[in-house]
Amino acid sequence: MNKNYIIPNEWAIIEEGFNVENVEASESLFSIGNGSMGQRANFEEDYSGKTFQGSYIGGIYYPDKTRVGWWKNGYPEYFAKVLNAPNWIGIRIQINATNLDLNVCKISNFRRELNMKEGWLGRSFKAILPTGEEIEVHAKRFISVKYNEVGAIEYSIKAVNFSGEITFSPYLDAGIENEDSNYNEYFWETLKIVEGVNQGCILAKTLKTEFHVATAMEVDFAINGKNVAATHISIIEEKALTYTYKLKVSQGETATIYKFASYVSSLNYEKGNLIEAGFKNVTEAKNLGFAQLFQDQKDSWATIWETADIIIEGDIKAQQGIRFNIFQLNQTYMGTDARLNIGPKGFTGEKYGGSTYWDTEAYCIPFYMATKDASVAKNLLMYRYNQLGKAIENAQKLGFKNGAALYPMVTMNGEECHNEWEITFEEIHRNGAMVYGIYNYVNFTQDFEYVVKNGLEVMIAISRFWHQRANWSEVKKQFVILGVTGPNEYENNINNNFYTNYLAKWCIEYTVECLNKIEEKYPQDFKRIVAKTNLSGEETYKWIKVADNMYFPFDEEKQVFLQQDGFLDKELIPVKDLPKSERPINQKWSWDRILRSCYIKQADVLQGMFLFEDKFDKEVVERHFDFYEPLTVHESSLSPCVHSILAASIDRMPKAYEQYLRTARLDLDDYNHEVHEGCHITSMAGTWMSVVQGFGGMRVWENGVLSFNPQIPAEWKSYSFTINFRGNVLKVYKSQTDCKFYNESEKELKLMVNNMEVIIPSNQLLTV
Amino acid sequence: MNKNYIIPNEWAIIEEGFNVENVEASESLFSIGNGSMGQRANFEEDYSGKTFQGSYIGGIYYPDKTRVGWWKNGYPEYFAKVLNAPNWIGIRIQINATNLDLNVCKISNFRRELNMKEGWLGRSFKAILPTGEEIEVHAKRFISVKYNEVGAIEYSIKAVNFSGEITFSPYLDAGIENEDSNYNEYFWETLKIVEGVNQGCILAKTLKTEFHVATAMEVDFAINGKNVAATHISIIEEKALTYTYKLKVSQGETATIYKFASYVSSLNYEKGNLIEAGFKNVTEAKNLGFAQLFQDQKDSWATIWETADIIIEGDIKAQQGIRFNIFQLNQTYMGTDARLNIGPKGFTGEKYGGSTYWDTEAYCIPFYMATKDASVAKNLLMYRYNQLGKAIENAQKLGFKNGAALYPMVTMNGEECHNEWEITFEEIHRNGAMVYGIYNYVNFTQDFEYVVKNGLEVMIAISRFWHQRANWSEVKKQFVILGVTGPNEYENNINNNFYTNYLAKWCIEYTVECLNKIEEKYPQDFKRIVAKTNLSGEETYKWIKVADNMYFPFDEEKQVFLQQDGFLDKELIPVKDLPKSERPINQKWSWDRILRSCYIKQADVLQGMFLFEDKFDKEVVERHFDFYEPLTVHESSLSPCVHSILAASIDRMPKAYEQYLRTARLDLDDYNHEVHEGCHITSMAGTWMSVVQGFGGMRVWENGVLSFNPQIPAEWKSYSFTINFRGNVLKVYKSQTDCKFYNESEKELKLMVNNMEVIIPSNQLLTV
Repeated sequence: MNKNYIIPNEWAIIEEGFNVENVEASESLFSIGNGSMGQRANFEEDYSGKTFQGSYIGGIYYPDKTRVGWWKNGYPEYFAKVLNAPNWIGIRIQINATNLDLNVCKISNFRRELNMKEGWLGRSFKAILPTGEEIEVHAKRFISVKYNEVGAIEYSIKAVNFSGEITFSPYLDAGIENEDSNYNEYFWETLKIVEGVNQGCILAKTLKTEFHVATAMEVDFAINGKNVAATHISIIEEKALTYTYKLKVSQGETATIYKFASYVSSLNYEKGNLIEAGFKNVTEAKNLGFAQLFQDQKDSWATIWETADIIIEGDIKAQQGIRFNIFQLNQTYMGTDARLNIGPKGFTGEKYGGSTYWDTEAYCIPFYMATKDASVAKNLLMYRYNQLGKAIENAQKLGFKNGAALYPMVTMNGEECHNEWEITFEEIHRNGAMVYGIYNYVNFTQDFEYVVKNGLEVMIAISRFWHQRANWSEVKKQFVILGVTGPNEYENNINNNFYTNYLAKWCIEYTVECLNKIEEKYPQDFKRIVAKTNLSGEETYKWIKVADNMYFPFDEEKQVFLQQDGFLDKELIPVKDLPKSERPINQKWSWDRILRSCYIKQADVLQGMFLFEDKFDKEVVERHFDFYEPLTVHESSLSPCVHSILAASIDRMPKAYEQYLRTARLDLDDYNHEVHEGCHITSMAGTWMSVVQGFGGMRVWENGVLSFNPQIPAEWKSYSFTINFRGNVLKVYKSQTDCKFYNESEKELKLMVNNMEVIIPSNQLLTV
Repeated sequence: MNKNYIIPNEWAIIEEGFNVENVEASESLFSIGNGSMGQRANFEEDYSGKTFQGSYIGGIYYPDKTRVGWWKNGYPEYFAKVLNAPNWIGIRIQINATNLDLNVCKISNFRRELNMKEGWLGRSFKAILPTGEEIEVHAKRFISVKYNEVGAIEYSIKAVNFSGEITFSPYLDAGIENEDSNYNEYFWETLKIVEGVNQGCILAKTLKTEFHVATAMEVDFAINGKNVAATHISIIEEKALTYTYKLKVSQGETATIYKFASYVSSLNYEKGNLIEAGFKNVTEAKNLGFAQLFQDQKDSWATIWETADIIIEGDIKAQQGIRFNIFQLNQTYMGTDARLNIGPKGFTGEKYGGSTYWDTEAYCIPFYMATKDASVAKNLLMYRYNQLGKAIENAQKLGFKNGAALYPMVTMNGEECHNEWEITFEEIHRNGAMVYGIYNYVNFTQDFEYVVKNGLEVMIAISRFWHQRANWSEVKKQFVILGVTGPNEYENNINNNFYTNYLAKWCIEYTVECLNKIEEKYPQDFKRIVAKTNLSGEETYKWIKVADNMYFPFDEEKQVFLQQDGFLDKELIPVKDLPKSERPINQKWSWDRILRSCYIKQADVLQGMFLFEDKFDKEVVERHFDFYEPLTVHESSLSPCVHSILAASIDRMPKAYEQYLRTARLDLDDYNHEVHEGCHITSMAGTWMSVVQGFGGMRVWENGVLSFNPQIPAEWKSYSFTINFRGNVLKVYKSQTDCKFYNESEKELKLMVNNMEVIIPSNQLLTV
């Protein structure tokens, strides 16, 4: 069963009542982060029930030795994993002599709130301990957006029915493990534990990758809101540092601990300076004080929401869903560091290793591009540009030559680290997403300079790959691409995946188009690039031959492109005729049965029509939608958004809305029964697209024109969203009766709305 | 580079000179066994160099937790592994105070001999120890065929240049590991260590499977060949028992230890009786004495060779090769226990888990059937019959119904335990081999009663599988079988593998043929089987519809059946045009590249034509041979034999001979650079077929007729082989000029030779 315990609220994720069954799911849903670090909503105090601990630092990973059955030539040696980092939130609590553990106390008034507007996590409850003491706890924490190495906790305990002693034992612990460790190994080595006055620090390093991380804390106390001094005794263990403070309270009094913590890493500091840097951070935080840090946090989030918010009226669950998606996307990636990227689970879990997938280019770039400064999307492109060398090496390992590049399926540092052959070696369509990301960026920003300076090199390497990867079929008298896995991973090692072949052809054509443009308009750069890549006209001629003669499987009778050769040999039984007891098929069926079935995990031919909507007539899209949608099980989180957008584009609003709900509340309602492992961050960008590109019908065309075709689901009163379009802020409002555009920028904006040209003067509201 | 150090000899495998590089390869090649247990040729004394220890007991396995990257639904929980069993051969040696270790001594006159005629392993060498003592060692050991739980060692040391003390420390050690353990776990738990007078025993059990095994030893000593008494001190460790005996020797004297050892297991005894049984075995062995045991061993092997030997004149390497193959096959499986089977590496290594593969039915049955009593082949069939329930369960796990069975790809107890989806779930052609094994057996033995009593149930369950596994293609208007892996594992998840489709159709047809025959001739049995399997005429009608309308990919232009749909889309570059540096492709190319290439790992379409040669005209076979042979890389040990046989059948003797050499000396010359991991036992049965069915052209047709078409490679003077045909012993001799048949049996034999009917009276020699 899906979960259904999150209380609808416009700006917050709220849980009321304590249910041990929901602890791990809530740990995912209530995660906090600031793009540089993140933290699952684990309790500060001890908890003896089932819990999945997770603290993460962007860019700090471990190359866990690959686990496979039978080794195949070319497999990567390791799978890079985002690391569960040293615990900074821990505060062990004793009431008189009894340890506070929600698993053994009688709990009432339990409430958890993730305040998305202001960026903090709150928790409150009443507990009666086994020894009879009753307490009331209010805890609040956040990870600062402004001071991006700092987290802060305010943890208050009211002595309801007793006078006595409350012991706070804030600690740091580097003795942590990854749940998904392949061989149950430790990933961290503790190097140094340093004590100060009310402050402490653990320096640890990751094994193999040798990242050094200092985790620092400093604490402060109050009774009834008034600061008090407190002294501690320290317990230094092999991998942990604990300070124990005992505070006397009378019945009715409230004791509070403030814990300020910081991660600093060798990504940003000299290794020798880390302890000092950590101490500096926590001392500054303590000096600012919790209240000031908290105010800064509210301000930071207010700024973020200004250009990112989507308001939905008349459907509070939809409102909560979209804001949760936008909130988590911002918690995962802020775009200020080109070394970081967007892991499919962000900082909310371990699965998928926290690594970079094609999700970034195919799903996430539009969101970050349209809600933030153009530099953010550019940083995402630069991430791949900086890894081009590794992508070329990766292709070499697979037998490609002459600077051909195959970007990895999964990576931390540019090296491939996924180890299922049918994905790693065969899901090569990802290479197309790399070029599409550039295309998308250039259309949106009109920053063609990026292509000139960086992008073209990537595109050349990828076109080389496609040219070499295709082969001439004597039978078909066309070029074919054999042995691939398309976006629909419920097919493996197939021939002539429509999506892959289409992208291959398009990549070559777009590369040649850019080459020609650069040759003409940037002759110096053209020379530089040609020299650097050793490119000849003869070579590009060969590419074009492949692109011009690419084969696409097509059925004349049905007039549809086939997902792959032989697709129509399958038994085509619509998903609706599958017994419920057999779904999701990935949990009920063996892999071979899935593979030979007609069921589609995620948009594949339709993914192509979504990316290149301008290349297909509406009736073509309709025909393909009607053929493939009934066979699609959407067991990938990345599928419903694409179907939602395409459905809107062919005026199937009920279907668009159905698929929207599935993507928007995927985690909140736990559609896939796996939210305890973490949230589906990258699919959240798809949710954003479902509103803006789906209902809003926003497109940016190759000629740079921005267009809208706003529609609204029957279930909503109105919705509005904001676009940062080449530095101009545009708000779009759509209700059942109205459609308004508000241009907040300094200059007039020219748009297409419902195929009509519209010009909106600066700072004007226009009703269309 | 291939290895080339084995000295050619008609009856022995000989190594001269000590080379640390060859130690592990020799440990495989010089392995000994008796079908119930086996032992790699590890040294008795300590050896600090690289070595791969292996002692194995038939039927004793461990379910090692599966290791995969991403778990797929339906994967088996474990991979059953043949276990490295407690060490029984160990004798630590000290000369005065110095340990004997060939890795640190100066070695000369090193010689190793595996005497295949008599079934023993000998080793001799001179060693100068680091402390200066010079010794001459002669060691001999064997695993008794007659007393099949017993092994015996004679180990003599001559004091060449000193008088002093020789310490013999015979030991048993249950603290052993499997090299291929997935998670470096111990598979054994030591339960009890028992001491006696010059005898000792360790009782240990396998974890999870709870097999109990007692390993017992008893020792005896001689000086200059005369028995002497000796007393020991014992060292009892957690998992090992060592007795230390010190013998005084004068210069020139020889001290000898006899070590008799025994494995007894809970497969054959009550757990409580194992220690007693082990002691009984070793005491009886000691009382018989090494010399008598050794004589028994020679006698046993003489009997085996009587009906199994193949004599080749004029090519000593070919002679050595074929005898090595026959010897190892007999060491692996004697056919007396229907619970045992033939692991691809027999008792010579760990790889492939010592489990049962389709190799047994597709390759091994003919050898055991024609060189041993018919009960042996029947035991192999009964092994599968007894596992039918598990095969039905296995199919259920994959979504099949109504008693359909899918036999496992790899098994110890009937449960599937292989965990690569492309093999486990998709290499379903193995199901066809199960039926083919029955067909083969019935043709050869004319024992149709087996079908009535057992075989038909297996065939019904398998026909059900094929019926359910095929689906109707609306496009092709025929039945297709999608998503399979054929015998050529260099293709995965393909559609309409010719071999698989052909076997599916044939299985149904043969089942229906047997059903009809049984209905007519054994009406009571028919009723019983129909009731037991709940079979209806309506169901068989559906099977027949599938068989009658099965699709086979075929190219009109080339007039060849295609290995699978789309095969001709590949670039067809013959193997001979592949640079040597890129071979073997499974070590040089990544998996995706192999998959999309045209290269064939092992006979596939040709495998079908080999199994059903009578169904294809010679010119059809020629055409397919000429199409597929140039694309075949033979990177499976099971491939060359099939090509050799087919080549002979179409009069391509040079090609047949080339492929014969490859199969016959695969391990001796280490073609695949992996003999150190163990020998390719099951492919050895293919070598036997290459001579008997290939050069000898032996066939047994559906009507029960035995036929020959003897040819001889230009390189040989003559060859001869023996066939046990329905209890009649027939010797076939072929030279460049002569072809003779000698009927050793009590009644006349009717054969077809070169398509002519020949009758050979009892005990007569006939020249044809």
